[in-house]
Amino acid sequence: MSKIAVLGTGDVGNTIGSKLVELGHSVIMGSRTGSNENTLSFVAKHSGKASAGTFAYAAANGEIIFNCTKGFYSLDALKMAGEENLKDKIIVDLSNPIDVSKGIPPSLSVCNTDSLGEQIQRTFPSAKVVKTLNTVWCGLMVNPALVNRGDHTIFVSGNDKNAKERVKEILESFGWDEENIVDLGDITTARGTEMYLALWLRIMGSMKTGSFNVKIVR
Amino acid sequence: MSKIAVLGTGDVGNTIGSKLVELGHSVIMGSRTGSNENTLSFVAKHSGKASAGTFAYAAANGEIIFNCTKGFYSLDALKMAGEENLKDKIIVDLSNPIDVSKGIPPSLSVCNTDSLGEQIQRTFPSAKVVKTLNTVWCGLMVNPALVNRGDHTIFVSGNDKNAKERVKEILESFGWDEENIVDLGDITTARGTEMYLALWLRIMGSMKTGSFNVKIVR
Repeated sequence: MSKIAVLGTGDVGNTIGSKLVELGHSVIMGSRTGSNENTLSFVAKHSGKASAGTFAYAAANGEIIFNCTKGFYSLDALKMAGEENLKDKIIVDLSNPIDVSKGIPPSLSVCNTDSLGEQIQRTFPSAKVVKTLNTVWCGLMVNPALVNRGDHTIFVSGNDKNAKERVKEILESFGWDEENIVDLGDITTARGTEMYLALWLRIMGSMKTGSFNVKIVR
Repeated sequence: MSKIAVLGTGDVGNTIGSKLVELGHSVIMGSRTGSNENTLSFVAKHSGKASAGTFAYAAANGEIIFNCTKGFYSLDALKMAGEENLKDKIIVDLSNPIDVSKGIPPSLSVCNTDSLGEQIQRTFPSAKVVKTLNTVWCGLMVNPALVNRGDHTIFVSGNDKNAKERVKEILESFGWDEENIVDLGDITTARGTEMYLALWLRIMGSMKTGSFNVKIVR
């Protein structure tokens, strides 16, 4: 079991944090103030198995870092976490660079020739950024069995092979079948999964639910 | 059976044109010169069931227009086809705005807040643009049974409901199950399917084949 920092206290952070606690990990939830309402209720709910603090406190105490902050805020949040506290650590990056400033459905603040995953990797070169889970609604992230008996696809992008192996183990502990975890390659492939958001949003609009995913068939 | 113009004489145009001939349609293949090598061999192969000419000739004689040109060339090709020849007609747009000028894998020449499908619709406002089939390799477009017994998803985007219904009929004649044809909404949803190319290319790189597709599961 690991000490895992979960940065971000919204639906994604709460969902991931709760699952990690359930799996026996020690979770340190990080936020700007370290004491917002979501954080306090998370710690109360998981009394003795979770703690909380600032982004920097959480990152310093976590062996693995889950970035569950909103994409427009992720670089700032990780800078507050601090380069020293992220050094050589795995950053599991679940964020999407959603930009709602130009209306709904949102566009992306970075895409096509760059991605948020790459920006994070460039900003923290010693960290091992692994982009994953950003293609599904958070309920599915930790409970793939909710649709199609768990038989659907999740992607992994990152430069470090060992980091990706460790993240795949965590994904398997979440319920993802090994054969459904597709390694797309280095962190530049995060462009693909982040840009898929544009399609995901429209499929959600058509299906009237976020509880769906794609399965690669061949 | 319809008179169908197929603009573009590459793999996509040839594959679509051949399938339409097989289904009994009268195909007019259009290209810049009207007489390139691919065109001549297509007409020879489908003697009596296919004809060929310039983009303008094909568009003038087609009741439905398939845009099978490469995305960087589509607007020019359709302008050569001529607004009068496209007036009030369905343009089935299969193109992707692939830009290889910045290296491989390619990026998109338009995305995020606009799409090639929308550009075509704006350029030819009386035409009924229906974006579809651009998310799969051309072999699968006309033969979905090649993977997963034909059980996988194809998307349709467009502003005109009747035009989308007509295109869905054509897709069903290609072998797509009605339940696997997902109507995403108006032509702005083409952003989603065009941006999916970034993910498609990386999945292809990982799978080492273009003969795959996604199936939406829920």
